[in-house]
Amino acid sequence: MTKSLVLLSGGQDSTTCLYWAKQKFDSVEAVSFDYGQKHILELQKAEVIAIKSDTPWKVLHCPKMYGSSPLTDSNEKVGNYDSVEDLPEGIEPTFVPARNILFITMAVNYALSRGIKDVVTGVCQVDYGGYPDCRADFIASMNMTLNLGIYGEHYRYEPLGKDQITIHTPLMYLTKKETVLLAKDLNCIEALGDTHTCYEGTNPPCGKCHSCLLRARGFEEAGIEDPLMKGEK
Amino acid sequence: MTKSLVLLSGGQDSTTCLYWAKQKFDSVEAVSFDYGQKHILELQKAEVIAIKSDTPWKVLHCPKMYGSSPLTDSNEKVGNYDSVEDLPEGIEPTFVPARNILFITMAVNYALSRGIKDVVTGVCQVDYGGYPDCRADFIASMNMTLNLGIYGEHYRYEPLGKDQITIHTPLMYLTKKETVLLAKDLNCIEALGDTHTCYEGTNPPCGKCHSCLLRARGFEEAGIEDPLMKGEK
Repeated sequence: MTKSLVLLSGGQDSTTCLYWAKQKFDSVEAVSFDYGQKHILELQKAEVIAIKSDTPWKVLHCPKMYGSSPLTDSNEKVGNYDSVEDLPEGIEPTFVPARNILFITMAVNYALSRGIKDVVTGVCQVDYGGYPDCRADFIASMNMTLNLGIYGEHYRYEPLGKDQITIHTPLMYLTKKETVLLAKDLNCIEALGDTHTCYEGTNPPCGKCHSCLLRARGFEEAGIEDPLMKGEK
Repeated sequence: MTKSLVLLSGGQDSTTCLYWAKQKFDSVEAVSFDYGQKHILELQKAEVIAIKSDTPWKVLHCPKMYGSSPLTDSNEKVGNYDSVEDLPEGIEPTFVPARNILFITMAVNYALSRGIKDVVTGVCQVDYGGYPDCRADFIASMNMTLNLGIYGEHYRYEPLGKDQITIHTPLMYLTKKETVLLAKDLNCIEALGDTHTCYEGTNPPCGKCHSCLLRARGFEEAGIEDPLMKGEK
């Protein structure tokens, strides 16, 4: 039986990954991270998504991370923009150094305790907001580091096999439009109505932050109505 | 001014690394990890070592890690052996998957918040007890992963520069004997009297665990008396 663990943030991307994993693996579990986020809504949404998809779900509690971010620090403001074109270049101010390394490490440690070696995350290097830890070359290096650190050198020059940890990133090369179309193929558009994307944590979403703008453009380009916005227009 | 952060477990190796760093860098700080260890003595020793060496010191609190180890689980027994030759092959039962990845990640995250990019750890692949995450190829991969995940691809093919995170492992290729001789060169043999090595956490040390046996052999081969054992014979 094939087993996998999905890193479920409660957002659009990780929820699409959850449904992707449910098609690909016999058994799927999910974890979400309590990292001191201001928006506890994220975890509530993740739980709803897990329950509705009948997925065993666990919250992993992160240690304190240093480096301020508007996602955890109420003194810092999230950027507001009028359109995708106005988004600044460079690394998003929400970036916390090494946080994704921490998330993946904790997820893999938990996965192994459940007999799982396939881990799924929704990172994407197309609309990646300058986060270096969402890129394919980072994920490849992280995957290698995990196998070297947990299984040792004997796997070093071998192709990835079933006895190794594999980080799956089904959205890595997709645009937001393609991710919405993938969700349609996976019959999970309706489930995206339970997701949370907005950096401001408001409900309905603010529509002005990096996350909201990219989500809106993805649905628009895919020609599909965002179930989260039904009745908002 | 050059700055570094030492991962200080309170043991012989990390203490030697602390004194190594004090010779190499203008400024040295240290962190220790509260990972639910049974032997709180470890942290007490680390604090004593930090105070005596006039090193700013901080405890980082780790998240729960899955996978049992006799170092954290009182239901599990540490192996007792009569000599180094009796030590079993393979991975030590004290190994927790991905724990060293977690420690290094948390240390680097903290270091960056202090404006530090040079991190020092006492891992060693000579007497490494089968821990895959103490080996040079793991550390190299971990170092690459951190730079890719924090600074992105533009550093990928460049040699390590001063703007990058560097994990220093001064003991990597030393035997325990050579580590003791290094400590002598660094004038820190006396400081090793404040260290804690025993897996059993007893004081005086049990003398029968993997850690105690290797320590004893190192001092013996170096022809130096272990200050921890003064008056014990």
